[in-house]
Amino acid sequence: MFGSSFGTLFKITTWGESHGKGLGVVVDGCPAGLPLDERDIQIFLNRRRPGQSRYTTQRKESDTVEIFSGVFEGKTTGTAISMLVRNEDQQSKDYSEIASYYRPGHADLNFDIKYGFRDYRGGGRSSGRETIGRVAAGAIASKILQELGISITTYTQSIGPVAIDYDRFDADQILQNAVYMPDADAANQAMAYLESCMQEQNSSGGMIECRVQNMPAGIGDPVFEKLNTNLGKAILSIGAIKGFEIGDGFQVAKATGLSNNDCYQMGADGKIEKISNHSGGITGGMSDGCEIILRAAVKPTPSISATQKTVNQAGENIEINIKGRHDPVIVPRAVVVVESMVAITLVDMLFAGMFSKLDRIIEFYK
Amino acid sequence: MFGSSFGTLFKITTWGESHGKGLGVVVDGCPAGLPLDERDIQIFLNRRRPGQSRYTTQRKESDTVEIFSGVFEGKTTGTAISMLVRNEDQQSKDYSEIASYYRPGHADLNFDIKYGFRDYRGGGRSSGRETIGRVAAGAIASKILQELGISITTYTQSIGPVAIDYDRFDADQILQNAVYMPDADAANQAMAYLESCMQEQNSSGGMIECRVQNMPAGIGDPVFEKLNTNLGKAILSIGAIKGFEIGDGFQVAKATGLSNNDCYQMGADGKIEKISNHSGGITGGMSDGCEIILRAAVKPTPSISATQKTVNQAGENIEINIKGRHDPVIVPRAVVVVESMVAITLVDMLFAGMFSKLDRIIEFYK
Amino acid sequence: MFGSSFGTLFKITTWGESHGKGLGVVVDGCPAGLPLDERDIQIFLNRRRPGQSRYTTQRKESDTVEIFSGVFEGKTTGTAISMLVRNEDQQSKDYSEIASYYRPGHADLNFDIKYGFRDYRGGGRSSGRETIGRVAAGAIASKILQELGISITTYTQSIGPVAIDYDRFDADQILQNAVYMPDADAANQAMAYLESCMQEQNSSGGMIECRVQNMPAGIGDPVFEKLNTNLGKAILSIGAIKGFEIGDGFQVAKATGLSNNDCYQMGADGKIEKISNHSGGITGGMSDGCEIILRAAVKPTPSISATQKTVNQAGENIEINIKGRHDPVIVPRAVVVVESMVAITLVDMLFAGMFSKLDRIIEFYK
Amino acid sequence: MFGSSFGTLFKITTWGESHGKGLGVVVDGCPAGLPLDERDIQIFLNRRRPGQSRYTTQRKESDTVEIFSGVFEGKTTGTAISMLVRNEDQQSKDYSEIASYYRPGHADLNFDIKYGFRDYRGGGRSSGRETIGRVAAGAIASKILQELGISITTYTQSIGPVAIDYDRFDADQILQNAVYMPDADAANQAMAYLESCMQEQNSSGGMIECRVQNMPAGIGDPVFEKLNTNLGKAILSIGAIKGFEIGDGFQVAKATGLSNNDCYQMGADGKIEKISNHSGGITGGMSDGCEIILRAAVKPTPSISATQKTVNQAGENIEINIKGRHDPVIVPRAVVVVESMVAITLVDMLFAGMFSKLDRIIEFYK
Repeated sequence: MFGSSFGTLFKITTWGESHGKGLGVVVDGCPAGLPLDERDIQIFLNRRRPGQSRYTTQRKESDTVEIFSGVFEGKTTGTAISMLVRNEDQQSKDYSEIASYYRPGHADLNFDIKYGFRDYRGGGRSSGRETIGRVAAGAIASKILQELGISITTYTQSIGPVAIDYDRFDADQILQNAVYMPDADAANQAMAYLESCMQEQNSSGGMIECRVQNMPAGIGDPVFEKLNTNLGKAILSIGAIKGFEIGDGFQVAKATGLSNNDCYQMGADGKIEKISNHSGGITGGMSDGCEIILRAAVKPTPSISATQKTVNQAGENIEINIKGRHDPVIVPRAVVVVESMVAITLVDMLFAGMFSKLDRIIEFYK
Repeated sequence: MFGSSFGTLFKITTWGESHGKGLGVVVDGCPAGLPLDERDIQIFLNRRRPGQSRYTTQRKESDTVEIFSGVFEGKTTGTAISMLVRNEDQQSKDYSEIASYYRPGHADLNFDIKYGFRDYRGGGRSSGRETIGRVAAGAIASKILQELGISITTYTQSIGPVAIDYDRFDADQILQNAVYMPDADAANQAMAYLESCMQEQNSSGGMIECRVQNMPAGIGDPVFEKLNTNLGKAILSIGAIKGFEIGDGFQVAKATGLSNNDCYQMGADGKIEKISNHSGGITGGMSDGCEIILRAAVKPTPSISATQKTVNQAGENIEINIKGRHDPVIVPRAVVVVESMVAITLVDMLFAGMFSKLDRIIEFYK
Repeated sequence: MFGSSFGTLFKITTWGESHGKGLGVVVDGCPAGLPLDERDIQIFLNRRRPGQSRYTTQRKESDTVEIFSGVFEGKTTGTAISMLVRNEDQQSKDYSEIASYYRPGHADLNFDIKYGFRDYRGGGRSSGRETIGRVAAGAIASKILQELGISITTYTQSIGPVAIDYDRFDADQILQNAVYMPDADAANQAMAYLESCMQEQNSSGGMIECRVQNMPAGIGDPVFEKLNTNLGKAILSIGAIKGFEIGDGFQVAKATGLSNNDCYQMGADGKIEKISNHSGGITGGMSDGCEIILRAAVKPTPSISATQKTVNQAGENIEINIKGRHDPVIVPRAVVVVESMVAITLVDMLFAGMFSKLDRIIEFYK
Repeated sequence: MFGSSFGTLFKITTWGESHGKGLGVVVDGCPAGLPLDERDIQIFLNRRRPGQSRYTTQRKESDTVEIFSGVFEGKTTGTAISMLVRNEDQQSKDYSEIASYYRPGHADLNFDIKYGFRDYRGGGRSSGRETIGRVAAGAIASKILQELGISITTYTQSIGPVAIDYDRFDADQILQNAVYMPDADAANQAMAYLESCMQEQNSSGGMIECRVQNMPAGIGDPVFEKLNTNLGKAILSIGAIKGFEIGDGFQVAKATGLSNNDCYQMGADGKIEKISNHSGGITGGMSDGCEIILRAAVKPTPSISATQKTVNQAGENIEINIKGRHDPVIVPRAVVVVESMVAITLVDMLFAGMFSKLDRIIEFYK
């Protein structure tokens, strides 16, 4: 396996298992001069921390981050930034049973096939805890974006049958309810739906939506490093995500050129502007100056207590009820993971966007 | 721009513009010993060649491929394979007008912003002709997969409102109708729909579906080089694609763990098998031995003759009617592009799957 | 084999065999706006063209380059630039004999081991003709450097026992003698030495030196992408090169800190300057503002007509006399190859040097 | 800066500064099933640990390594292995003075130019302590090589004017003297020479030699990922190394084809063998089955107590005497660093050597 790194110029390398000593990330390519301390990272990590509500695992983890390198006197130095979060509540006794069988919807069997055996404690590397490194790195990327005037808003768009109503959209709501919805009413309905799932020892899927404001136009590199391509790769690398779309997404399949094209006009400020934004802010693989809008479909938590059929390592058909402390829905805690991966990708591609014109390179080195 | 390469171990580098001298690709990492000649490539290229039906551009191109390196006495040598297709029917006079304004839904404006100017002849690098290099490389990847017993079936799943009926699914139909649908009735309806689009000087979107048979399990590298991740990147790098999903895709958002998990049982052959395939053949980022199923949403051709608003380079609001020889739908010719990108990705990841276990490496070098 | 690409941001992908249809390169990452036409490339290619003197192979090749993409109306567009040189004088009949045995000092046997068979015509991919792609790309890199005010001087430092005398150093001489020495007297002696080698059906090694003027300080990325590291990789990727050194090079092994350190002083222009340049312009892996100086040791041409022992494919000990049109020395024609690889590396690392400081990135995107 | 990773398939990412909290590495691409615990790593780290003799810095560091991930029940799992060594004896007060001026031979000034400021404590990222991550990763790579039957011998070839006598070569001596020489007499002379350097507050350069036994033939990927190319990159990425050569190295410049070519003969075992090994085990960029031999020239420690001229941050010419705990010679502690980088490179390229032939890939996946 050599799949622990993401990004070309702003590059992250994550490591760690659910029940090992800890998890972390090395961020390479962060420019010098960014004010940074552990609190900047902690704010992001707290958004994915377990035990925050009834709808997340009750595992007790403070997820306290420690920065080991790359920061000196409160600023990034330009060298690799290593960050570490120790596991505190491994309780690996809970997981002794699952060593013997293959959990439906999990990577257990594939790990055995690929590697010959697996770290069966809590999913090992394929646990949701794997995203700690992504989020810690995402906090840094987000700070860089902020310095460039770019902001990201990410939230739960739906849980099971409950979707937000855009007429009630209120960004301030996002961090105020346990399901990170920008619509208090929908949040309440979603929580009620989750209660019913939990009662049935079942779990729910959902949808995450992400919007980026103030992205400069022309970012993204045809033909294989388009902005949408790399955002897609970023999002689809997150466990449990089965679909990705940008702008009108799957709706375009039924659209026509006339209904889907974004026409241009001169804006009040004398700049060219798009009249509509079906493209979701990316045209021809490059940011087009409009708001970037993307969505990800998240599958239901595969670990459920309801009875399921499976096979054990002895090759026998068995029925199981998975115990342990599992989230009834992945979506809310994945919101900050999506935001982090988007931020990392945008920073990477903004850096890549600095040498498309010779005259700007000459100017840079003058 | 440095986005012309795709893949890590089986790596392609494409080049060429719509109205330049030609287009091509360098394939690096093709193993030695694969029987290969120009006919193998031509079969693939013919599937995306223009002028094959009423529903494709009437530009006259034979798209004849020439292999320049990496093949000796009918076999690949292990060195880089360079392939070239010359443009024959550039007719760049048709495109002189579009130099002066920005076509809605195209990359024109972004190219000007990013590079300071653009090759305005037929979209330059962002033309659909860009995919010639992908398809030529895809033909090689497909031959390798064939040697490994892996096959791919790709087709049009829908055009505008017309979708195939899976009860009438007939793979033999795919290459027998102009819209590459595995359902003759749906194909006829789709063609009728396209006629109506053409009459309205409009165009249509659609959906492509791709299935892979006999993929070995355990391929894909957590956490950033998952099989679905790289398939997503591959597909989303194709122009006009706005959405990607695998298996149940966006349906998972409304599913529950019980309905979405694929349970296991012992098969008649004594091997573990999945009872269902909601995952679309990829679990935990690795192939799980089942058929891989993925879908891509393709936007309508942005070049339409109907009147559209836009802005010219003088900064004036204008109305335009784009002339030229454009496809009323992108989907059918993109089918082989999707198949090619899938094949390239699978070969790349199969190679990457060869050093996950120490004992197999020791065995290899014994 | 997947080793046909070099560089990260300014990336070249070369292809082609000695006796195939042609050779070429795809240059990806060239910024838009560089004036470029075939003559710029041809000047470089002519410096490595065969048949220029008694001391190069008599193979007749015009090495005429054709640009296929990435240039529009005389300027680079920012898209991939594909260049092609056709082989004209393959004469592969000359090479039929060598198919049966392994030439000492060549890659023949290794190719058979690695790939199962080989393109035996003239060395195939491991021929010196492989460098055509490097030189064509190097011409572009050199033009970019020129726009940035950076210049490179490369020349033969020694051939066999004959080295240049730095007191007679005359850069204007380099292109005026057949061995590319900046010292007319040494050049004459070197040519006399080559005559004696040729009479003995033998060949000679030699040394190439390269100097870079006006390189900005601070370029190079600790700890694995140092400037010297990548220059070393670039040079050591050229066939026949067995040693690389920078600045005082191997002399440092016998030096002391006092004799080897470059002390600093304030210059007349109020800038800090180094009093000496033992480091060869690179300190701590980064350019230090002084002239960059590097040297490469080139082995003698392995193809010689004198009798040599070897083994044939039947496993018999035999004696051979290699026929064909071989250079008695590799060095002179490799001078422009070294210069090209240095230019490519410098451009790549200059681009990589654009995002080390946050404030400059903010300024860039303002 | 994005230069913290090395390798393609077996990839290491190092981080950490001389006086930060610690240093470490993430190893990605280690196959599953390798027995591994902290003692395997510690043996390697102890070979570069400070305070072992009069000739190394007296800084007190146990350099105790902790493995955080990728190992389960005593075996590697195939996931990323994160390792950490905490700094224990930072004593950063020693370094407060050097914040104000630029040390000759160090990266201080370049860091300020590149990043705007620097972590001035003990050289920060450009300290010799940076190599801890390389050596920890090298220990793993060496274990893999051992499983494949490949061994590496590395030692000091010379210190200042004192070189080993190959007639007295005794590999067992290497770990038995403070300067890691395979010749007890030379070691004593070298130590005497170092005493004289120390008395003069000066330091010494030297040479390291490395030999690899039992490397399979055909490893290395023409034309840019040759084995010698990547070994060169690996070695030249180590601080203080100014020259690299393979086999006869710089001697080839004065050699002839007849003297330099390695002729072939049939061996007693019925296999083709080289009669000589001027190539140093690498021909045409691929291992040729013979012992690989390479050498690196190491500059003298730049930190010396003798008086040197430099400039301070106020722009004044000053004279300095660097205090602190510095090694009078870098070579002995760099021996294990060279061995580690060679091991990492060999593993990476052995993995890359697994898909050169189609039939072996087919066999693998059967």
